[in-house]
Amino acid sequence: MRGKASVLLGLVVGAATVPGRAQDLPASYREASRQVLARALADEGAWKKLEHLTTRIGHRLSGSAGLEKAIAWAHEAMKAEGLEGVRLQPVRVPRWVRGRESLRVVSPLPRELAVLGLGMSVATPAQGITAPVVVVRHEDELSALGRQKIEGKIVAFAPDWEGYGRTVRFRSTGASLAAKLGAVAALVRSATGRSIGSPHTGSLSYAEGAPRIPAAAITVEDAEWLRRMAAAGESVTVTLQMEARVEGEADSANVIAEIRGRETPGEVVVMGGHFDSWDVGQGAHDDGCASMAAWQALTILKELGLRPRRTLRVALWTNEENGLNGGRAYHAGLGGDFASHVAAIEMDGGCERPVGFGFSLLKPGEARPRRGEPQASQPTDPRGAAALETVRQIGSLLDSIEATAVRWGGGGADIGPLMREGVPGLSLTTTGEHYFDWHHSHGDTLDKVQPDDLRRATGMLAVMGYVLADMPGRLGH
Amino acid sequence: MRGKASVLLGLVVGAATVPGRAQDLPASYREASRQVLARALADEGAWKKLEHLTTRIGHRLSGSAGLEKAIAWAHEAMKAEGLEGVRLQPVRVPRWVRGRESLRVVSPLPRELAVLGLGMSVATPAQGITAPVVVVRHEDELSALGRQKIEGKIVAFAPDWEGYGRTVRFRSTGASLAAKLGAVAALVRSATGRSIGSPHTGSLSYAEGAPRIPAAAITVEDAEWLRRMAAAGESVTVTLQMEARVEGEADSANVIAEIRGRETPGEVVVMGGHFDSWDVGQGAHDDGCASMAAWQALTILKELGLRPRRTLRVALWTNEENGLNGGRAYHAGLGGDFASHVAAIEMDGGCERPVGFGFSLLKPGEARPRRGEPQASQPTDPRGAAALETVRQIGSLLDSIEATAVRWGGGGADIGPLMREGVPGLSLTTTGEHYFDWHHSHGDTLDKVQPDDLRRATGMLAVMGYVLADMPGRLGH
Repeated sequence: MRGKASVLLGLVVGAATVPGRAQDLPASYREASRQVLARALADEGAWKKLEHLTTRIGHRLSGSAGLEKAIAWAHEAMKAEGLEGVRLQPVRVPRWVRGRESLRVVSPLPRELAVLGLGMSVATPAQGITAPVVVVRHEDELSALGRQKIEGKIVAFAPDWEGYGRTVRFRSTGASLAAKLGAVAALVRSATGRSIGSPHTGSLSYAEGAPRIPAAAITVEDAEWLRRMAAAGESVTVTLQMEARVEGEADSANVIAEIRGRETPGEVVVMGGHFDSWDVGQGAHDDGCASMAAWQALTILKELGLRPRRTLRVALWTNEENGLNGGRAYHAGLGGDFASHVAAIEMDGGCERPVGFGFSLLKPGEARPRRGEPQASQPTDPRGAAALETVRQIGSLLDSIEATAVRWGGGGADIGPLMREGVPGLSLTTTGEHYFDWHHSHGDTLDKVQPDDLRRATGMLAVMGYVLADMPGRLGH
Repeated sequence: MRGKASVLLGLVVGAATVPGRAQDLPASYREASRQVLARALADEGAWKKLEHLTTRIGHRLSGSAGLEKAIAWAHEAMKAEGLEGVRLQPVRVPRWVRGRESLRVVSPLPRELAVLGLGMSVATPAQGITAPVVVVRHEDELSALGRQKIEGKIVAFAPDWEGYGRTVRFRSTGASLAAKLGAVAALVRSATGRSIGSPHTGSLSYAEGAPRIPAAAITVEDAEWLRRMAAAGESVTVTLQMEARVEGEADSANVIAEIRGRETPGEVVVMGGHFDSWDVGQGAHDDGCASMAAWQALTILKELGLRPRRTLRVALWTNEENGLNGGRAYHAGLGGDFASHVAAIEMDGGCERPVGFGFSLLKPGEARPRRGEPQASQPTDPRGAAALETVRQIGSLLDSIEATAVRWGGGGADIGPLMREGVPGLSLTTTGEHYFDWHHSHGDTLDKVQPDDLRRATGMLAVMGYVLADMPGRLGH
């Protein structure tokens, strides 16, 4: 962390920028930030929007009536607020439908288990799949067992909890790893550290060339129980029934609104979250809160008459959860003009108490590290270091709400395509204490969101978006 | 809290006791306690028993095959360990069966809600009950609405969370309160402060003269959602289907084992927990851990050759959850000879980190305060004060595991009938941080129990039980 903002904020308005040197920010941003934060911390708008979205509309899986309703509502409400450039960017999305599903222990202790099919999974036959369960903790155990022990079985991935980033891989890749060895279905421990009998869904990714077998999340409790039964030498047989299927594609859209730049409207800072969710809970933390915070940040700036030098745009991306077609369509819609984008901000880590931002500046074509992979803690080139320093200066404007932490390493799935073109990418960061307790589960509901945290996030996005869009030099230039 | 144990423990072995004066304990108990705790903290026995009970047997509702299996297993295993007086005390218990159940929002946002019928509830008709929901936060709101607004409706009790003790009353009494005003079914917010879409069951109590309507627990999330919909003026209609029924009675038993007293075997200290559980989760914290800790405490004392002056008895009571017939049968089995019982210890608050004991000494016929009612923080007579002081002296032997807290106010449902006869009653107390997150839900499973907490509880019961059974004077005399 750096020293006090008052020392850092110079008076060099409009100074030419030198790559590799942090930009000094006009002192006037401190007053603007104070004004924005005061307004945001007294604001009920983001909460009212999030309450409407979660209570009256509910969850919003791609291709569902819920998402269509949410998109139409946001589009109309943004127009009614008088925001500029309000439009729907058409996106085709997969329509995956869960259908009925059940998981039953047949022997030795018959009982129903809680289950949530993984997104994009195929169905079982109507009568279900009944087979003994083979429990593995990780890929090496699976490989060691080999085809002879796996063929015809249901593989249950019951890994140790090593945090979301490392543990979630079994949800993504487990089904195909098991299928390659002849498994007939896969069960995966929910990617959470705390559970009250709560399964957590999420997308799987079928590997090329592997048979597509049905796969479902089980609870931490049942994964632990299966491990204990296996350790006791007890064979458990289950019946998995799933009606899951992809029903072709559906029309969807990214929802976009702007405050047009007063000097260079062709230069854009885009910020937002994803508007779709899973088909359980209400998508409150993932990612309704971010969508509403970004939208309300724009609303507040408009109400305060703060029109930045460049265009500040909000995008509510569709289909982040099971396709990423919204982020891809946004990228494609730029027609190769990535230079138009000064920065991209994505909030997609829930809305617990916000603490700051993560920031990355990739070289064109460079890939962001995957979840669970080690991340560099510092930029490796002077341009990245200078841009990071500038973001830290902007972050220092958030000292009154103790949200000044700016760390190297940021971005998000929807802005990933932009970042790979060299667009600077930011993510809002929070304390992240309970997010994965609720994530992708029936528990991701409005009651988990603290109104004051949502107000703070709204204020932070307004300040960061405004200053990035307004400051004399472009970030990273 | 009192000063150091070394100061308190006098050398007055076998001193005559004076009512109203705390007994000084022989100094030899410090060495015995050290030995017991050292053994308990290195012990795997309680864990192995609890693992078998929860993993291989599972939940244990009165009248279920699970409870029968558990009783038979414990009975045989206690005999195999060479414990004395191992026997089954026959108890008739109700056989309530949950059957299938579902709760579906019909309008305006059709979806399935998580539901758990309340224990002892009656069924709905086969086609279910479909009716608009009237949401109330407490009894006064219900009364204010009156028969005109309630008749033919499903009442949803969606109270503020005021802690388990106060909030659980809606589960017990809500159905009949609503039925008296003509409601056709009741839904009750689960009695928990934290939820991940997890319903919590528990017994209801139908009032005399009120129609018996079906009642079920809903999640915190859905209770909050119903409140928000009501506040928004949206009418929600649901269909509740429940097959719940009482299938007469079943044979069950309290499981009993002892170390017979070396001097006055007719004087008894009884300690234990309840062996039955709800029909969800594994009854790990409620109350498997206590049953296994008490049993293993006896096992350890036997292995160490510590035979107390009086008889130390373990009782695993049946049917605590939906009848209390186990505790009643134990009381009735004494044939009025309550003077035989020197003290009764019940552990039924889960097995988080234990911190000490609660203690009460009622006058014969005096009722224990109900849950949620204010409790006196100090004894009101010299006899209670002296006995409390003695229990504190024993508690001070647990200083090495920081479990010396002895507060006024203890007991439990199974030993309630004994306590009302004037038998001194103790309960083991814990930090109680998450117990009600898991209580009566699918989440009450072994993975929530920390082996070290179970070892400590085992050691504490062994020390407290041993000293109460061995000390020269009787507690409270």
